[in-house]
Amino acid sequence: MAFINENYLKLQGSYLFSEIARKVREYKEDNPNAPIIRMGIGDVTKPLVPEVVKAMHLAVDEMAVASSFRGYGPEQGYDFLLNAIVTNDYKKRGIEIGTDEVFVSDGAKSDTGNIGDILGTDNIVAVTDPVYPVYVDTNVMAGRAGEFVNNLWNKLIYIPCTAENNFIPEIPKQKFDIVYLCYPNNPTGTTLTKAQLKTWVDYAIENKVLIMFDGAYEAFITEDDVPHSIYEIEGAKQVAIEFRSFSKTAGFTGTRCAYTVVPKELMGYTKTGEKVPLNKLWNRRHTTKFNGVPYVIQRAAEACYSEQGSLEVKNVISYYMKNAKIIKDGLEAQGLKVMGGVNSPYIWIKTPKGMNSWGFFDYLLKELNIVGTPGVGFGPSGEGYLRLTSFNTLENTIEAVERLKKISL
Amino acid sequence: MAFINENYLKLQGSYLFSEIARKVREYKEDNPNAPIIRMGIGDVTKPLVPEVVKAMHLAVDEMAVASSFRGYGPEQGYDFLLNAIVTNDYKKRGIEIGTDEVFVSDGAKSDTGNIGDILGTDNIVAVTDPVYPVYVDTNVMAGRAGEFVNNLWNKLIYIPCTAENNFIPEIPKQKFDIVYLCYPNNPTGTTLTKAQLKTWVDYAIENKVLIMFDGAYEAFITEDDVPHSIYEIEGAKQVAIEFRSFSKTAGFTGTRCAYTVVPKELMGYTKTGEKVPLNKLWNRRHTTKFNGVPYVIQRAAEACYSEQGSLEVKNVISYYMKNAKIIKDGLEAQGLKVMGGVNSPYIWIKTPKGMNSWGFFDYLLKELNIVGTPGVGFGPSGEGYLRLTSFNTLENTIEAVERLKKISL
Repeated sequence: MAFINENYLKLQGSYLFSEIARKVREYKEDNPNAPIIRMGIGDVTKPLVPEVVKAMHLAVDEMAVASSFRGYGPEQGYDFLLNAIVTNDYKKRGIEIGTDEVFVSDGAKSDTGNIGDILGTDNIVAVTDPVYPVYVDTNVMAGRAGEFVNNLWNKLIYIPCTAENNFIPEIPKQKFDIVYLCYPNNPTGTTLTKAQLKTWVDYAIENKVLIMFDGAYEAFITEDDVPHSIYEIEGAKQVAIEFRSFSKTAGFTGTRCAYTVVPKELMGYTKTGEKVPLNKLWNRRHTTKFNGVPYVIQRAAEACYSEQGSLEVKNVISYYMKNAKIIKDGLEAQGLKVMGGVNSPYIWIKTPKGMNSWGFFDYLLKELNIVGTPGVGFGPSGEGYLRLTSFNTLENTIEAVERLKKISL
Repeated sequence: MAFINENYLKLQGSYLFSEIARKVREYKEDNPNAPIIRMGIGDVTKPLVPEVVKAMHLAVDEMAVASSFRGYGPEQGYDFLLNAIVTNDYKKRGIEIGTDEVFVSDGAKSDTGNIGDILGTDNIVAVTDPVYPVYVDTNVMAGRAGEFVNNLWNKLIYIPCTAENNFIPEIPKQKFDIVYLCYPNNPTGTTLTKAQLKTWVDYAIENKVLIMFDGAYEAFITEDDVPHSIYEIEGAKQVAIEFRSFSKTAGFTGTRCAYTVVPKELMGYTKTGEKVPLNKLWNRRHTTKFNGVPYVIQRAAEACYSEQGSLEVKNVISYYMKNAKIIKDGLEAQGLKVMGGVNSPYIWIKTPKGMNSWGFFDYLLKELNIVGTPGVGFGPSGEGYLRLTSFNTLENTIEAVERLKKISL
């Protein structure tokens, strides 16, 4: 008799964004002409930049001819891409990362989800709250989250990030083995300074804690004191895995490329305290359960690093960040409390008039035809907040801000 | 202290094909001018067909323009591809599969590796022997394989497939919960008739066993009585997950697209015997830990089903199968015992003169400059065999057969 992984039965409801999609679909069925502006799911809207398009066409043509055709590539990624990553994302910031410490993949969702494979199921996991749901759900699946009691997973440690602590996570008093840190943060759009991140790295070194550092929004950083990589912090290679993605950086949400850095000096531990390099374990996982990113897509990712390519990609980011400023300024002018939007495409709004998150979501959808993401969908400390994204056209953003002026405080 | 998944420490050596690559690399370093013909790893060599190339260029152009740009798609795959799969691979064979039973992915290696996520770790797993290493290694990682004792995993059930039983797997006498069946088989190239497969399906229905049916080589079937899908067998939807891939079918080893069918009527069980639809669990896994296959790649896969596209793809298959016949005929003319090559690109050779698998591998590499795959790399019952593949040019194939004539029996 084939037995299931019963942890799956503990998962709550459906995945947040599916739920939002359902609500929007139902509203549209009743109101087919409603001029809906989607600022919910963090999906980009600008097309791929010309240099990326050019690289993809070239690569497709290579695949059409026997002499340049590529079959299986290295599961970890082609050298041309690994070198581009190591040089541009690390060396240029004074960080030494070897190409054998980088693993190219199809997405940070896959990587942050799959990384748990190489870790024991009885690690104590801490997450900031609110949080990207994938970290929590994949730990539920692995049995690390315990039971869902009073809207909380009783084996997870929640680290509240709210207006009360200025969205700066405090190191939990309880013992924990793994912590997920996403900065610039999804969903709040907030950041940590180097000094703030250093307190986490120092604590992790001292306590052999593993930091899962999700830097998917690194490209949106505009302020000087915000680290682009956790490896800017001394000693971080001993304690942190870093996840990066081309999804938001270069509009690859439908093109799919990301990478994970697992430094060689980063250790995990056996029950008897023996050290095991996590790089070796992840390499084994990656080569056994994955067969590499399509050649054409790796060439697309490489193109983001050329002189012209990086210029084009940066222009798109600037476009989104201009939108973010318009949203932030517009909402603040109305007296709303707003976080993010400076080093992040996300704007995190305190719901007005004591509305709860889904109440404000429904209000925006039905009254203003704007789709946001209810903050509570990201965890209990997200209640009373709502996330908007700047991944839209300038025109839609301006129109949305006009509509948002109708919120009477 | 971050604890590792200690099952990883039990994994034996490195992945088979990495080991072969290392041996070939070392030989080439010593013999830079050796005219090596690679018939080892099952990697295609013919370029993508023109219809696929055309579809990819079109899709890239769509990604270059805001109005047709695609961001996140449905994790399970776009309807255009799901419909093409359901219509061409199933409906045309009289099989009803719903589009919500198909999950498009980046590869059968990922799918057969990841499927274990939704299953309990204490299922008893049976594998045919020899076997595609990924089935075994991923079960080791999950803790279902037990310990490696005397070259065997002591919790796995091995089903020998050798010349002695004409390569027909016999249903084990011991109780088991899950069985992996790959037909046409990798590595032996052998097949099961409908009647032979039916005995497995009937047993699985009666004993609530889950069949993992890997049909990655379906496109190579030339004989009438060989099922293209396990769902041709009555009742199979109650017991089988089917894995399919474009890798070998359409030369997508470097382009990456595959799919998995999880029928809605297929049940898994809780410890208390409660039924749970596996479709629902896999859907949750797939949407939580995966973000879909690139749009451009899905359009490429779709193109394999158009009238012209399927013609082109079939021509490539015929090319490889002509090679297979040349290899098979050539080796048999020398008196070697050979399996496969009729419904499969793989030729499974009994090693001559009592050589063991690695011995024959070394002999072929060093004396004839031909790279094969040692049968023992696929499991203990593969000892005394070696796999060659027909994924080569006609010219190389003819040359290889010429060289193989030097084997003195």
